[in-house]
Amino acid sequence: MKALRLEKIGKLAMAEIPLPRAGKDETVLKVTHCAVCRTDAKMWRIGHRDLLLPRIPGHEICGISEKTGRRAVVWPGRSCGCCEPCRTGAENLCREMRIIGFHEDGGFAEYVRVPDSSLLEIPGDLPGSIAVLAEPLACAVNALQQADMAPDENVLIYGAGPVGLLLAMAVKAGGGRPFLKEIRPEKLQRTESFRRRIGALPCEQKRYDVVINAAPSTETFIEGMTRLDFGGRFCLFSGLTDDRRVPAALLNEIHYRQLRVSGAYGCTRAQMTSALGILDDFRDVVELLIEARIPLASVPVVLPAVADGLALKTIVDF
Amino acid sequence: MKALRLEKIGKLAMAEIPLPRAGKDETVLKVTHCAVCRTDAKMWRIGHRDLLLPRIPGHEICGISEKTGRRAVVWPGRSCGCCEPCRTGAENLCREMRIIGFHEDGGFAEYVRVPDSSLLEIPGDLPGSIAVLAEPLACAVNALQQADMAPDENVLIYGAGPVGLLLAMAVKAGGGRPFLKEIRPEKLQRTESFRRRIGALPCEQKRYDVVINAAPSTETFIEGMTRLDFGGRFCLFSGLTDDRRVPAALLNEIHYRQLRVSGAYGCTRAQMTSALGILDDFRDVVELLIEARIPLASVPVVLPAVADGLALKTIVDF
Repeated sequence: MKALRLEKIGKLAMAEIPLPRAGKDETVLKVTHCAVCRTDAKMWRIGHRDLLLPRIPGHEICGISEKTGRRAVVWPGRSCGCCEPCRTGAENLCREMRIIGFHEDGGFAEYVRVPDSSLLEIPGDLPGSIAVLAEPLACAVNALQQADMAPDENVLIYGAGPVGLLLAMAVKAGGGRPFLKEIRPEKLQRTESFRRRIGALPCEQKRYDVVINAAPSTETFIEGMTRLDFGGRFCLFSGLTDDRRVPAALLNEIHYRQLRVSGAYGCTRAQMTSALGILDDFRDVVELLIEARIPLASVPVVLPAVADGLALKTIVDF
Repeated sequence: MKALRLEKIGKLAMAEIPLPRAGKDETVLKVTHCAVCRTDAKMWRIGHRDLLLPRIPGHEICGISEKTGRRAVVWPGRSCGCCEPCRTGAENLCREMRIIGFHEDGGFAEYVRVPDSSLLEIPGDLPGSIAVLAEPLACAVNALQQADMAPDENVLIYGAGPVGLLLAMAVKAGGGRPFLKEIRPEKLQRTESFRRRIGALPCEQKRYDVVINAAPSTETFIEGMTRLDFGGRFCLFSGLTDDRRVPAALLNEIHYRQLRVSGAYGCTRAQMTSALGILDDFRDVVELLIEARIPLASVPVVLPAVADGLALKTIVDF
């Protein structure tokens, strides 16, 4: 089969490789769609903590089960099922976690092997090109759960990239009021119709119940903390990639105003099921996020723009 | 009446002043006990964000109501009762908060004027010298609530001062397992019997569910974060007083391991009621925390040791 393989940092090349074979409790999925995530692009450019090379990337996967013939999206984890996080429904924190597209081969290939337990059936007639966004949207749902977002709360999101916009959609779906702060005017321009349809407002001079960073600058944390109301919650959704240091005085804001900072990393199967439901409800709006449908061979061409955070969502259509 | 008044930073002097008069919905309390808090000592030495001068300090107060003749401890706040934090039971975050001993005169005096709503009756025959610790213990209860401590969890506390020890007691009362880290050997020595009675263990090389700082060094935060298990919770209980800066990489631990950092500041009336119950259950052990009972005039003598964090609990006995 054809697959895009990351041979080393910076080198993603098309390869002809043997078909994967399903082991016990596994399924081979014929990939119909795989979305390109900024993490794929970062992995290609600078590597990633959880990456083992050589590797077929791609962790936003939709396909048809060879076993059942049914359409499914993939929860991109292989969890042990036994450790405490697994037993308490936080399988994204599994102590033995192997991530598809990071530790194991992913969806930038015609076929992918996944654990049976990672398959989630696609409801009704939801198109695969929309359902494939269940994984990033589920990460957004996880962020809102970690931040304990309640209906009617004001939620400020830093970054109007695809994930920031999915976060805004998840806020809307959960009954909250999304606000977006984006420093690049061209991104605001490109996302105008999506933001209008979702009802995401520009950042105002007010205090927020929840602030989430969908941008990797430490400035989002430093500024975001000052935007929180008493008892407010900041969700560290994006890892911070610069080397700025945070003054202890900022941490004292957490103390004096009983703020809370929560981390969010990945998602659970249950959150992916919620995400599929939201995608079904918002399918027309989600279309506005999809900027390009490309063949597998074109992925290396789009990666630089994705890595730079300039692109909206690109989907590989097999 | 006699009162100790902080005239300016560094100058706490005995004064003869008029008796306070109760306004509408207020009570004058004849003070029987007032405990000395490290914050009183810091206020005397360097001031405090919420301090208005001149001021009678003292916010850990126990006395007899002039209105009812009954014994009560004082929730040291005057909250508006109308703002959102007040309406949702978080009156310690009241937007109009006035703190007794900070914004208003406190308990280093023979009499103190307090809102009726701030009085909490002392159960049964609990001695006033024990009940007077309801406020600091309630702050510990608040910290455990902000950290969502569950029974059987391992809780690491930085600092074996009075508040660290009260935190350990609150952990025990809540069914958790307290561990204490203290860098000063003389403090460990002095608190040995209390720690043994509570079952507080020394810090071990393991991961904790909850970590709380009852010490003002930023190092407690930096080290404490690395001690947390996946999904663990750090409570910023003590404000950080040094000017160290925290690297963004440490914040990424919050992201990758879905940690949580919560602040805790003050306490609510409900938490003080819980604290009175705990004090009643642990009254014999609490006695071990009380290092000295002194007359009001001796407070200035003990403040330096209290400010330096060397003292256990000192109580003014009227």
